[in-house]
Amino acid sequence: MKVKLTDVAKEAKVSIATVSIVLNHPNTTRISKKTKEKVLAAADKLNYIPNLAAQTLVTNKTNTIGLLIPDIENPFFSSLSKHIELILRKKNYALIMMNTLEDNKNDPEVIKAFRMRNVDGLIIALSSKSFYDDEEILKTLSKLDKPFVLVDRVLKDFKTNQVYFDNILGEYIATKYLIDNGHKKIGYISTRDFAVTGYYRHKGYLKALEEAGIEPNEDYIRYGRYDIKTGYEMAESLYEEGVTAISCANDLIAFGLKKRLTEIGLNLPEDMSIVGYDNLELNDFIKDGLTSVNQDVESFAKHIVDILFDILNGKKEISEVVLEPSLKIRNSVMTYKE
Amino acid sequence: MKVKLTDVAKEAKVSIATVSIVLNHPNTTRISKKTKEKVLAAADKLNYIPNLAAQTLVTNKTNTIGLLIPDIENPFFSSLSKHIELILRKKNYALIMMNTLEDNKNDPEVIKAFRMRNVDGLIIALSSKSFYDDEEILKTLSKLDKPFVLVDRVLKDFKTNQVYFDNILGEYIATKYLIDNGHKKIGYISTRDFAVTGYYRHKGYLKALEEAGIEPNEDYIRYGRYDIKTGYEMAESLYEEGVTAISCANDLIAFGLKKRLTEIGLNLPEDMSIVGYDNLELNDFIKDGLTSVNQDVESFAKHIVDILFDILNGKKEISEVVLEPSLKIRNSVMTYKE
Repeated sequence: MKVKLTDVAKEAKVSIATVSIVLNHPNTTRISKKTKEKVLAAADKLNYIPNLAAQTLVTNKTNTIGLLIPDIENPFFSSLSKHIELILRKKNYALIMMNTLEDNKNDPEVIKAFRMRNVDGLIIALSSKSFYDDEEILKTLSKLDKPFVLVDRVLKDFKTNQVYFDNILGEYIATKYLIDNGHKKIGYISTRDFAVTGYYRHKGYLKALEEAGIEPNEDYIRYGRYDIKTGYEMAESLYEEGVTAISCANDLIAFGLKKRLTEIGLNLPEDMSIVGYDNLELNDFIKDGLTSVNQDVESFAKHIVDILFDILNGKKEISEVVLEPSLKIRNSVMTYKE
Repeated sequence: MKVKLTDVAKEAKVSIATVSIVLNHPNTTRISKKTKEKVLAAADKLNYIPNLAAQTLVTNKTNTIGLLIPDIENPFFSSLSKHIELILRKKNYALIMMNTLEDNKNDPEVIKAFRMRNVDGLIIALSSKSFYDDEEILKTLSKLDKPFVLVDRVLKDFKTNQVYFDNILGEYIATKYLIDNGHKKIGYISTRDFAVTGYYRHKGYLKALEEAGIEPNEDYIRYGRYDIKTGYEMAESLYEEGVTAISCANDLIAFGLKKRLTEIGLNLPEDMSIVGYDNLELNDFIKDGLTSVNQDVESFAKHIVDILFDILNGKKEISEVVLEPSLKIRNSVMTYKE
């Protein structure tokens, strides 16, 4: 049988009002330390837990935040989820996590599920496909009656609270590093047609070439997805174009690329310089880790939660935070010698 | 302003009772298809969402499940979380996830947080330390007034609903594979003193040796944690013992081991055969992937949710499911030649 407030009051030999004050406002000075301890000991002895559902009806707050992500198995999102969860827990909020599996049909479904659960706010990393068929998601977001922050994958021309990394800058510094190492024929494997982050990274690649006075060559570019398979499949034809270095829109692509180039007999990094993006932790553990663009996920999580709580606390102005990536240098790039 | 049931009734020009039936029992045959469609269109137009908190007070159900895990960044747990979340969502349940960071002080705290949120049930993968200081956690679990399933890391001699992999069998088949390839001097890097899964894997290693009539040699065994650092630090001294193969309690240990052995000049796998545990996906993407023990996480998740819902549906008998791991063979093992 569920233990009630009255049971705790009886056990502690105090009034129900006293129990309620102690449990809901533990820092109150209206109750003596001795009485507080008596109440807490009684609650602990009876294994009493306050009924949050009843409180929710009064305050209309659930102290839960919904997190919509494409895929918790993507190391970037598992790290993000963990940091967000730990920050929220300190604030006495809980995180409900749902995966869309990169399918834009799931974005509105998941947002509706969060609304039904009456979460206090949402953190939304949209599925890639939402950027190319965005009418549905725009309709859903503009009707959304809860505070929310768009993260990582933001919508062009949609003014809302958002936090993301500067993807143009990230790919720019990666490609510039190859140029600074003497490379001129630089291949690029892009996710321009698949992911919005890839769309911007592609611009960063072109920007670095342009700044160095190198004419972009469409033959040096391949389009695919953020996966190993893409890198593996594009490797041979890119090599045959005569490029001396390849920049990849993420580390998984670079892993597939390396695997295939090794299979066809190349020595790495001597025969091909490669840079990745995401700076996956495993680069530190394998023999031939990648030079890769790093995004500080812990700081990302902190900014996201800060903005969400600003809205929950009544802030009306829209916040947009753009974080700067950096380059982690390892031995996957060689200086080019003619 | 929040849209109410009465607003939907007014919009659809039907009674409140009709709206309530359609929204709460969408498959009812008591209401005509035409009326149903009218109600759903009105609810959609007004952006109506039922108030689950009010329903919770009546049914005392929140349709949420709490998941306590050591670390969502551990690929095993991110995969588990994803599969559990997807199965629960189909059942109209949501997953609240909290990380304990492998610190047993956090286990009771997180369980209390889940009780306060009135989750309908809990899925609990305890932190490693709870097995060596288990008085507190046993007290917490025996007082727990919610259905729960212990997973992966279960407590010896504690009878409760639990699902886990047979860790003795897993390490047994890994070590036996090395023996079958002619190795007799087989090193082992164990987490026996740190993790309960490691405690059982260590037994599996000894069992395979015993069955083959190989005297275990304590000099061939090192104790550490489930991380890269452990493998890296133990590599040199184990090599100097003259072992020809090393079995590792997980893949991360094996990655650290490989890195250090390569640094000191060994050729792998020619100079040292290595097996891992967990069959991390990245083994398929790197040049020198590990032969490794595989655990079917999707089936694991399915069993866990099945048992939890059996309890929620009133089943009283305790269920214990033990899943069998298998060995995924790659090129990290060479046949030993004297």
